[in-house]
Amino acid sequence: MSSIKKDKIINDPIYGFVQIEQGIIFELIEHSFFQRLRRISQLGLSYLVYPGAYHTRFHHAIGCVFLMNKAIDQIRKKGYIITDKEAEAVCVAILLHDIGHGPFSHALEKSIVTNINHEMLSLLFMQELDKQFNGKLSLAIQIFKGKYKKRFLYQLVSSQLDMDRLDYLKRDSFYSGVQEGVIGTERIINMLNVVDDNLVIEEKGIYSIEKFLIARKLMYWQVYLHKTVLSAENTLIKILKRAKELIQDGTDIFSPPTLLLFLKNKFSKKDFDRNADLLYQFSQLDDYDIYTCLKQWINHEDFVLSSLSARIIHRKLLKVKLQNKPFSKKVILDKKKTIMQKHNLSQKLAGYLVFSDIVTNNACNSGTSKINILMKDGCVKEIKKASDQLSNNIITKKVNKFFLCYPEEK
Amino acid sequence: MSSIKKDKIINDPIYGFVQIEQGIIFELIEHSFFQRLRRISQLGLSYLVYPGAYHTRFHHAIGCVFLMNKAIDQIRKKGYIITDKEAEAVCVAILLHDIGHGPFSHALEKSIVTNINHEMLSLLFMQELDKQFNGKLSLAIQIFKGKYKKRFLYQLVSSQLDMDRLDYLKRDSFYSGVQEGVIGTERIINMLNVVDDNLVIEEKGIYSIEKFLIARKLMYWQVYLHKTVLSAENTLIKILKRAKELIQDGTDIFSPPTLLLFLKNKFSKKDFDRNADLLYQFSQLDDYDIYTCLKQWINHEDFVLSSLSARIIHRKLLKVKLQNKPFSKKVILDKKKTIMQKHNLSQKLAGYLVFSDIVTNNACNSGTSKINILMKDGCVKEIKKASDQLSNNIITKKVNKFFLCYPEEK
Amino acid sequence: MSSIKKDKIINDPIYGFVQIEQGIIFELIEHSFFQRLRRISQLGLSYLVYPGAYHTRFHHAIGCVFLMNKAIDQIRKKGYIITDKEAEAVCVAILLHDIGHGPFSHALEKSIVTNINHEMLSLLFMQELDKQFNGKLSLAIQIFKGKYKKRFLYQLVSSQLDMDRLDYLKRDSFYSGVQEGVIGTERIINMLNVVDDNLVIEEKGIYSIEKFLIARKLMYWQVYLHKTVLSAENTLIKILKRAKELIQDGTDIFSPPTLLLFLKNKFSKKDFDRNADLLYQFSQLDDYDIYTCLKQWINHEDFVLSSLSARIIHRKLLKVKLQNKPFSKKVILDKKKTIMQKHNLSQKLAGYLVFSDIVTNNACNSGTSKINILMKDGCVKEIKKASDQLSNNIITKKVNKFFLCYPEEK
Amino acid sequence: MSSIKKDKIINDPIYGFVQIEQGIIFELIEHSFFQRLRRISQLGLSYLVYPGAYHTRFHHAIGCVFLMNKAIDQIRKKGYIITDKEAEAVCVAILLHDIGHGPFSHALEKSIVTNINHEMLSLLFMQELDKQFNGKLSLAIQIFKGKYKKRFLYQLVSSQLDMDRLDYLKRDSFYSGVQEGVIGTERIINMLNVVDDNLVIEEKGIYSIEKFLIARKLMYWQVYLHKTVLSAENTLIKILKRAKELIQDGTDIFSPPTLLLFLKNKFSKKDFDRNADLLYQFSQLDDYDIYTCLKQWINHEDFVLSSLSARIIHRKLLKVKLQNKPFSKKVILDKKKTIMQKHNLSQKLAGYLVFSDIVTNNACNSGTSKINILMKDGCVKEIKKASDQLSNNIITKKVNKFFLCYPEEK
Repeated sequence: MSSIKKDKIINDPIYGFVQIEQGIIFELIEHSFFQRLRRISQLGLSYLVYPGAYHTRFHHAIGCVFLMNKAIDQIRKKGYIITDKEAEAVCVAILLHDIGHGPFSHALEKSIVTNINHEMLSLLFMQELDKQFNGKLSLAIQIFKGKYKKRFLYQLVSSQLDMDRLDYLKRDSFYSGVQEGVIGTERIINMLNVVDDNLVIEEKGIYSIEKFLIARKLMYWQVYLHKTVLSAENTLIKILKRAKELIQDGTDIFSPPTLLLFLKNKFSKKDFDRNADLLYQFSQLDDYDIYTCLKQWINHEDFVLSSLSARIIHRKLLKVKLQNKPFSKKVILDKKKTIMQKHNLSQKLAGYLVFSDIVTNNACNSGTSKINILMKDGCVKEIKKASDQLSNNIITKKVNKFFLCYPEEK
Repeated sequence: MSSIKKDKIINDPIYGFVQIEQGIIFELIEHSFFQRLRRISQLGLSYLVYPGAYHTRFHHAIGCVFLMNKAIDQIRKKGYIITDKEAEAVCVAILLHDIGHGPFSHALEKSIVTNINHEMLSLLFMQELDKQFNGKLSLAIQIFKGKYKKRFLYQLVSSQLDMDRLDYLKRDSFYSGVQEGVIGTERIINMLNVVDDNLVIEEKGIYSIEKFLIARKLMYWQVYLHKTVLSAENTLIKILKRAKELIQDGTDIFSPPTLLLFLKNKFSKKDFDRNADLLYQFSQLDDYDIYTCLKQWINHEDFVLSSLSARIIHRKLLKVKLQNKPFSKKVILDKKKTIMQKHNLSQKLAGYLVFSDIVTNNACNSGTSKINILMKDGCVKEIKKASDQLSNNIITKKVNKFFLCYPEEK
Repeated sequence: MSSIKKDKIINDPIYGFVQIEQGIIFELIEHSFFQRLRRISQLGLSYLVYPGAYHTRFHHAIGCVFLMNKAIDQIRKKGYIITDKEAEAVCVAILLHDIGHGPFSHALEKSIVTNINHEMLSLLFMQELDKQFNGKLSLAIQIFKGKYKKRFLYQLVSSQLDMDRLDYLKRDSFYSGVQEGVIGTERIINMLNVVDDNLVIEEKGIYSIEKFLIARKLMYWQVYLHKTVLSAENTLIKILKRAKELIQDGTDIFSPPTLLLFLKNKFSKKDFDRNADLLYQFSQLDDYDIYTCLKQWINHEDFVLSSLSARIIHRKLLKVKLQNKPFSKKVILDKKKTIMQKHNLSQKLAGYLVFSDIVTNNACNSGTSKINILMKDGCVKEIKKASDQLSNNIITKKVNKFFLCYPEEK
Repeated sequence: MSSIKKDKIINDPIYGFVQIEQGIIFELIEHSFFQRLRRISQLGLSYLVYPGAYHTRFHHAIGCVFLMNKAIDQIRKKGYIITDKEAEAVCVAILLHDIGHGPFSHALEKSIVTNINHEMLSLLFMQELDKQFNGKLSLAIQIFKGKYKKRFLYQLVSSQLDMDRLDYLKRDSFYSGVQEGVIGTERIINMLNVVDDNLVIEEKGIYSIEKFLIARKLMYWQVYLHKTVLSAENTLIKILKRAKELIQDGTDIFSPPTLLLFLKNKFSKKDFDRNADLLYQFSQLDDYDIYTCLKQWINHEDFVLSSLSARIIHRKLLKVKLQNKPFSKKVILDKKKTIMQKHNLSQKLAGYLVFSDIVTNNACNSGTSKINILMKDGCVKEIKKASDQLSNNIITKKVNKFFLCYPEEK
């Protein structure tokens, strides 16, 4: 009998079996920093609208590694060299690209910490892990930071066609049950190639890219920025803001100690740099702290805190309107006044229950990178020039919408 | 024990179980005219590129009935009355809408008969069935012809959003394995409503319609008008043309008697009107006759007939180029000359092996009907005005491409 | 334009669109008792093995209603009368059948309360809701209790082939990615019939039933009783037990107030009967409290509490062996001794880290009800007699296995 | 830009993209012998019951190669050496394992030729191809014949767990829409290992094997031996028999020349050995010839030939009864007498319309090979001893059933 070299197999309802070879990827998955992602919802509060969309950052990150391995295979087949060390590093980079996400992912990105986004936190985690793993992550970090010479490796981790986007669009469609978002991941990966160290898509894959762009736009409006999700997530943001305010005013509120630390302080990048332990504290946080607090805060005497908490927990969400132009000051004020009277609130406090903001379909981030097509004649064109189906508009147009949240009137 | 009223259940890999209640639909399915559709490929010769796309008109027609029943349910739920008699009739109409298709569906539509398209033949079949079923199809025929007062019933059978399109896009994607064409059939049907006797889509469904339009365009280029499919189907047309020519010249060629009748004669609408038996003769034809002939014709002494037949049967297809502008006469002539010399052919005969034509993405047929959106404020807008994602272009632009087929050179 | 009667549509990755008509079902879903199920994992800690199996009781309960509506349709088609009132009631009963589940469903069923299982709690919730809804649930309660004259309605809610089992097997397979558990839900429902007020399966459905029985057995061993899941869930039980012990000893431990109430007291059925408020307190509990506590308890000074909590949170689970016969006392004691020495623990405390128990594949509960087949000749046979593929064994044999959990040695 | 080494990509609705590298596999697929499989139905006439089950031997053979490549990867990962040459050869062997199938696969296996089954014909084709490819298939042929030293390579092509079975069960379930047959192909392949040159399944995969065995049994009764399929296929056999008889009696009947050759003569293995051209003649045959004939034979004056042909083409199949014991001679004779009188037929001719036979669930072929399980302790056990869920019965029991076909009485 041969000696068995055991891979770890992780079932994925989308891809079937994901095989993780013994080695650093496997060890990183087992690390408590990474295990924490099991408790971070991939789509914030979207599951209040799409109950199936209850999947986690943990599963997404592993799915990204699965796709990355496929992409590496393809690019090697096209004749480009990716060494085993580079392959491992780019897999580590994609595995950890989101490890800095806090509770409810994007939804609370600006509520828990200040002036430090999840990418910066991901980097801090990677650097800490690099220490623990004796420098084994340094190439991954270089790639993640876009400092490695083979630029296309960075683009596999972060660009218009990175493995992150390919996985999340497919995964979010799958779990939400919104068929419209399904994209041809496999075909797109098969069409990958490299020209002058940059990722390109072969011309034959142009339809799949068009479809990908449309699907992405639609997922934004139908799932990520669904108006009920906007209402829920913005309410959650208001709740945290109110909690912080109360704490700073000396009011006692329930909280697990770790979360309390972050509610009491406004930690910024500098604090993380100065205080190594802070990252460990942050790594204790997940969706569970927040929900446990909300449930207790329902009973708090502060009307804003308790009523908003109940709205999330009992899913009695604020009404929401979405439109293409800003809401007039008058409309907003009128809504506030109703609330002020009804609940005897100051205008400032009414602003927790009645609020308006802008929301942007930022699918494109057209600044950051482009999608380039490798034409049959060997030249490279941007998708907006290569496509004869899509208008420029569709690809680069940023769409702004405005929402107004307010309590139902009765 | 209760007496069991048995429905017919037909397994469908796409929809699961399709239930057909006892009654006229069931009896029509059992009729030999309809059973013939089991032997008519839904997508002509597309399976030479997508081997899974080997599904038949039979399954498609039944799928349409499945969707029609869902649409009827939805429209009734929205408060619109569809009587049981109307429901049955509109199901009959969709079941039989394609019954007039001949061998290889669209591919040979102009090769077997002349000046009579498959819709006209479908109507002839329906009228004949109406006789056999003692007038039970008359309401269905009225609907099919667009003569019935409730116009939306006609639109369910034939319009931009008819059940035909919804089924075929889904089915063709599924079987071809081209994920890109998958559309949100169920959601689109849920968004159906009726305004002033016209089908509309509720505003919430606008993304699904956008997706549907893109998917349709892409399926055209990726599957229906795939260049290899173009090569194969146009070769088949040439073969039939050559066969007719040879027969008219008195050359003996193998053919089952029924097909021979159609190869010898140029039957047009008038012939069908004059000669009731002709429809029965037509109903004997299917893909099987054609392929059986091709296999025999490989051994025929006529070079054109035999070499083209072998190209289909052995899948050694003519090379094909596809471009946005017409091929120059010179390019075509050069290709012909090569062939003429090589095989000692006249220029006329070389035209069977080297030919160019235009091909049009006629997904839109924007003349025939529009897609109307029922906005939340109650007004109705055309999709091209209601959509802020799609450009006008995408919805209505007709794309012409040009192909050139020719033998490989060696 | 017709007035639109709006159904609620809930996306389900498994069934597509689930339509919930306006009315009591819809109102119950919106009730905070039911919303709580969004925070109760369907499969306890199985997601530590199958990361996709992170679905909730909420989605399962709605899936059951979806299947129930299909079953009602079928049975009516077979000629049996189910009134609209009965249909609504049986849907209410299945919607609420699991509403009594506490945190992590079955895993902690005996840890939070005493002598009261989730079915009893479901009934208490239904009775409370019946009050709130002015008696509208009384028929549902009668059916749920098996007291209603049409016995087959009860069987649709609770029997070998109830809609609960049909949904959970399908759902758990789907989310875990264990294809083996997929069952032919639709076919089984189509084969339902009623004889003498009892549910039966028509003979044609016998293969589907055989497959269902095998799939169920396999899901038990591969998912529900997967040895790593056993280790995790039994560790969780030990943690709660230890927490209670510490509290009773007067040690201070972190807990949200509501959970603390249940850790401090041993509430039984009588307490719920005496104290109406207790049910409300119970309805505050969900998975979130437990996980939030575990994260804090990691820092507790009690070695058992902290080390076991870390094992769950960081997924460093106790090793586990599974075998067909009991583990010998010696083996267990040896493992304990190692721990006692290593961590300076009493034998009693070592029992929190080293423990063995029996586990039973209780798929069949053959006592409770049988699966009856309606043969073509009109007679009714039990599946074990009707099947010529399965042995008696497979259907009724209870399989006992024994597990031993212990810390890795190093 | 790197030079692009192009793989052929074949879309498969089941596996997604199947990549075929340039080389002999690709060239064999392009060969006209293999292209013929596009015109051979995988499941004979099963599509008269399951209209989706219209897939071909062509797609199945390619699917087998896909799975074979996965199996090779796994076995290599387990530490066993498979050289590139062996890998290619075993892929060639599985690609061509069914190339000897004639029209309608198994259904007409004994009707077209005599004393030579499809495996023998496959071997003849492989040997002919070996000549054409200058000996490149010789290792494949060795493996196919079970003569190669590494026995497990043969077992991947032909054994209880060969890639043929894994693909066809999955494919046939998928296309027929019979969910019950779905098997965990991927998991089974992951559990493959080799002990003493024999394929084994690791113990962890035991549930998947149990499920596979049950699924296979069920597919037999529900699809392959569905009683309506039995009726259709046996009728087709009778038709061919009658056609041969008529020809031998000097009656003129329509047939394409190649098929006529096989109807006129009883070719056996010896004839193929003596006459090299015969294989080429055989390679001209496919389903299309048969159906084209049936359509013409409907008009033949011979009552048996015409009425049975019409039964297939118009799907007015003979009634069929299926039971566990033989039908009594009296029952059969009574049915025949009715027919004899009604149609003025001799008893011999009545035997074409009324006939009974035995049918065997030969899923197991337990003689040929066994399924061996590699236990965790390193020993190897047969599945029937390793499984504690399945009874011996299920695995090895051959089930005989008896069918009787006869015309409806009216």
